[in-house]
Amino acid sequence: MKIYRIAVIPGDGIGKEVVPAAMEVLDKAALLDGSFQFEWTTFPWGCEYYLETGKMMPDDGIDLLKGYDQIFLGAVGMPDLVPDHISLWGLLIKIRREMKQSINVRPAKLLQGLPSPLRNPNGFDFVVVRENSEGEYSESGGRIHSGQDEVAIQNAIFTRKGTERAMRYAFEMAKDRRQHVTSATKSNGLTYSMPFWDEVFAEVGKYYGNIGQTTNHIDALAAFLVMKPQVFDVIVASNLFGDILTDLGGAIMGSIGIAPAANLNIEREYPSMFEPVHGSAPDIAGKGIANPLGQIWTGKMMLDFLGYPDVGTKVLNAIEETLAQGVKTGDLGGTANLREVTEAVLNNLQ
Amino acid sequence: MKIYRIAVIPGDGIGKEVVPAAMEVLDKAALLDGSFQFEWTTFPWGCEYYLETGKMMPDDGIDLLKGYDQIFLGAVGMPDLVPDHISLWGLLIKIRREMKQSINVRPAKLLQGLPSPLRNPNGFDFVVVRENSEGEYSESGGRIHSGQDEVAIQNAIFTRKGTERAMRYAFEMAKDRRQHVTSATKSNGLTYSMPFWDEVFAEVGKYYGNIGQTTNHIDALAAFLVMKPQVFDVIVASNLFGDILTDLGGAIMGSIGIAPAANLNIEREYPSMFEPVHGSAPDIAGKGIANPLGQIWTGKMMLDFLGYPDVGTKVLNAIEETLAQGVKTGDLGGTANLREVTEAVLNNLQ
Ligand SMILES: CC(C)[C@H](C(=O)O)[C@@H](O)C(=O)O
Ligand SMILES: CC(C)[C@H](C(=O)O)[C@@H](O)C(=O)O
Repeated sequence: MKIYRIAVIPGDGIGKEVVPAAMEVLDKAALLDGSFQFEWTTFPWGCEYYLETGKMMPDDGIDLLKGYDQIFLGAVGMPDLVPDHISLWGLLIKIRREMKQSINVRPAKLLQGLPSPLRNPNGFDFVVVRENSEGEYSESGGRIHSGQDEVAIQNAIFTRKGTERAMRYAFEMAKDRRQHVTSATKSNGLTYSMPFWDEVFAEVGKYYGNIGQTTNHIDALAAFLVMKPQVFDVIVASNLFGDILTDLGGAIMGSIGIAPAANLNIEREYPSMFEPVHGSAPDIAGKGIANPLGQIWTGKMMLDFLGYPDVGTKVLNAIEETLAQGVKTGDLGGTANLREVTEAVLNNLQ
Repeated sequence: MKIYRIAVIPGDGIGKEVVPAAMEVLDKAALLDGSFQFEWTTFPWGCEYYLETGKMMPDDGIDLLKGYDQIFLGAVGMPDLVPDHISLWGLLIKIRREMKQSINVRPAKLLQGLPSPLRNPNGFDFVVVRENSEGEYSESGGRIHSGQDEVAIQNAIFTRKGTERAMRYAFEMAKDRRQHVTSATKSNGLTYSMPFWDEVFAEVGKYYGNIGQTTNHIDALAAFLVMKPQVFDVIVASNLFGDILTDLGGAIMGSIGIAPAANLNIEREYPSMFEPVHGSAPDIAGKGIANPLGQIWTGKMMLDFLGYPDVGTKVLNAIEETLAQGVKTGDLGGTANLREVTEAVLNNLQ
C-alpha cells in the first residue's frame, strides 16, 4: 500500500470547511482504488495564526512542508483584519515561490448540470497554464516622495527560464489535448516585458511544429473567453494575465466556487500545492453553505499529479453527476448546503 | 454658427471605412441642431505612412494637431507589417500622452436590439474611467543578458497626480449617475503599485462621502462583469486594468465593434481624441462589412464633450433604433454591410 503524506493547510474562511469535505472524498477515492492511501497532517496557519503570532506561518514552516509529498490548501485571507499583501505574501505566494511551484494549471470546462452565464457556451474546455513564480507579481519596486509628489513603482520581471518553462509545459500539455496553444500578450502596451514574452513563445513554438499557435492581446483574449470560449485549448499566460483569465474561466463555468487549480513544481523537487481558484469568502464563512466542489476538483488534480488519472476522472464524474442531480449550493443557484453536496459526491463516487 | 475644427485620423484597416461613415452621421447631427458645424481635416497617418516614411506621423504631427479643437481617430495597426509596439507608440499612445489625454472614458450598456452573450445581462449600464497616461504602460524597463540568462523588466509607474485625477473624475461622474464607484485593484499580488492605488482611492473617497465605494481585485472584477454586470456604475481602473475591463464591456454588450471611447484632456488645454475600443481588424478591412456603430457612438461622446449632450443622445437613440430594426453587420449576427447600417442610422437620426 502506497502512502502519500499530505500537508493540509485549510487556511481562512471557507477554506476550513471545504478542505475537510474534499479530504473525505479523496479518502474514499483512494479506498476504491485500493493501491494507495492518504495520511493527512493539518497545519493551522493563516490569518488567525497571524493575529496571534505576527506571522502567517512559523519560521520553519517551509522546511516542515518540505517533508510532505504534496500540499492541500484551502484559501487564505481575512482582508478586514489582515491586509491581503501581508496574508498572501506570508503564506500562499511564499509557498508558491519557495517551493518553486512555477507552473499554475487551471482547467475551465463546461460541466453537465452547471449552466454557464453565457447563452452559447458551446461546450468549452480549455486549460490555462499560468507562469506562477515571477512576472508582474514581484516584491521589486518602491515609492519616492510623499503627498502630491508621491510616485509608486512596480517592476515586472520576466526571466528566460521562467517564461520558457511555462511555454514548454503548455506545448507538452497541448500534445495530449487538441493541439493548440494560445499565448496571452500585451506587447502593444507593455513594451519590454511582452515583446520578450512573444519572442520566447515564437522560439519555443518552433520545436512544436505540429501544435497550432496563436497570440492574442490580453484585452481581446478576455473578451474572447466571453464570445467564443470553445476555440481555446491551452492558454499560456503570465502570472497576472493568468490570474485574470482563470477567474473569467470560473465565471463562465458558472461559479468561481467550482474552479480548481494546481501550483506545480514540475521538477518534483519539492511538494506541489493544490488550491482552488476561489478565495476565503469571509461573508459566507462558518455557515456551512460554501461550495466544496472547487476544493474537490482540486483534489482530483492532485490525484492526476500523483499518477492516478483514472481515479481523478472518477472524482470529476462524481462532481458532474452531483450537479446533474441538482444538488448545488447557493452560488450555483441551488439550495443544498456544503454537507449535502459532499454526501452526494461521496455517493456518486463509485 | 459655431465651427469645430476636427483633425481626422482614419488610421489603418477598417478605420478608413468607419470614420467617414461616422463623419456623415455627425454632420447630419450638427445640421439638425443648427447651431454648430464641423470642419474636418484628414491626416493620412498610420502604418502605410510608416512603410513609406519610417514614421507613423510627421515630426511636427503633434504640433499640427494642437491647432484643432478635437481629434477623431479610427484605428491603428497592421501587425503583419508593422510591430504593434511601433505603430501604437508612434501614433495612438503618442497622441494620448503628448496631448495629456490622461482620462479614458468607456461606457458599456445593454442596448435595445443588441443581444448580449450573457443569459441574464440585467440591463447593465456602467462606465469605465481608465487612467490613460501612465501606470503599466511605460517605456521604462529593459533587458539584461542574452540567451538562457536573459531577463526583461517592465516598470509600472503610478504618480499621485495621475492616480488622483482619474479617481476624482470617476467620483464626479458618479454624482450624475447612480452614485457608486468601484476601484479595480490587485494589491494582493502587486505589492507596490496597487496598495498605493488603494490608498489614493480611500483618500479621494473621503471627499465623496455620499458616493458608494467598493474595491475589487481585477480578477474578481473581470468575473463579476460576466456574473453581475448590472451592479456596476462607475469603475475606475489603471491603464492596463481599464484596457482589459473595457474589452470585456464590449464583449458583454454583444460586440467590441460597438464599444466607444474618449481620450480626454479634461483640462481642455489640448484637443481630446475620440477613438473606438475596437482595432483595425485587418482580416475584414476593405470589404465594406465593418461595423460603424462603435465609431458613430464614439462621435456621440465627442458631441457630449463639446457641450451638446442632447444631440449626442439623439445619435445614441438612432444607433439603438437601427439595432432594433435588425440592421446589423456580421459581428452582431446580421447581414447588413457598413453602408446599409450607416444609411439606417442617418435615417433614424431625426
Ligand atoms: C490571492 C491572490 C494573490 C491569488 C493570485 O492572484 O495569485 C489568487 O487570485 C489566485 O489566483 O490564486
Ligand atoms: C492598441 C492598444 C495599445 C490599446 C490600449 O491597450 O490602450 C487598445 O487596446 C485600447 O484599449 O485602446
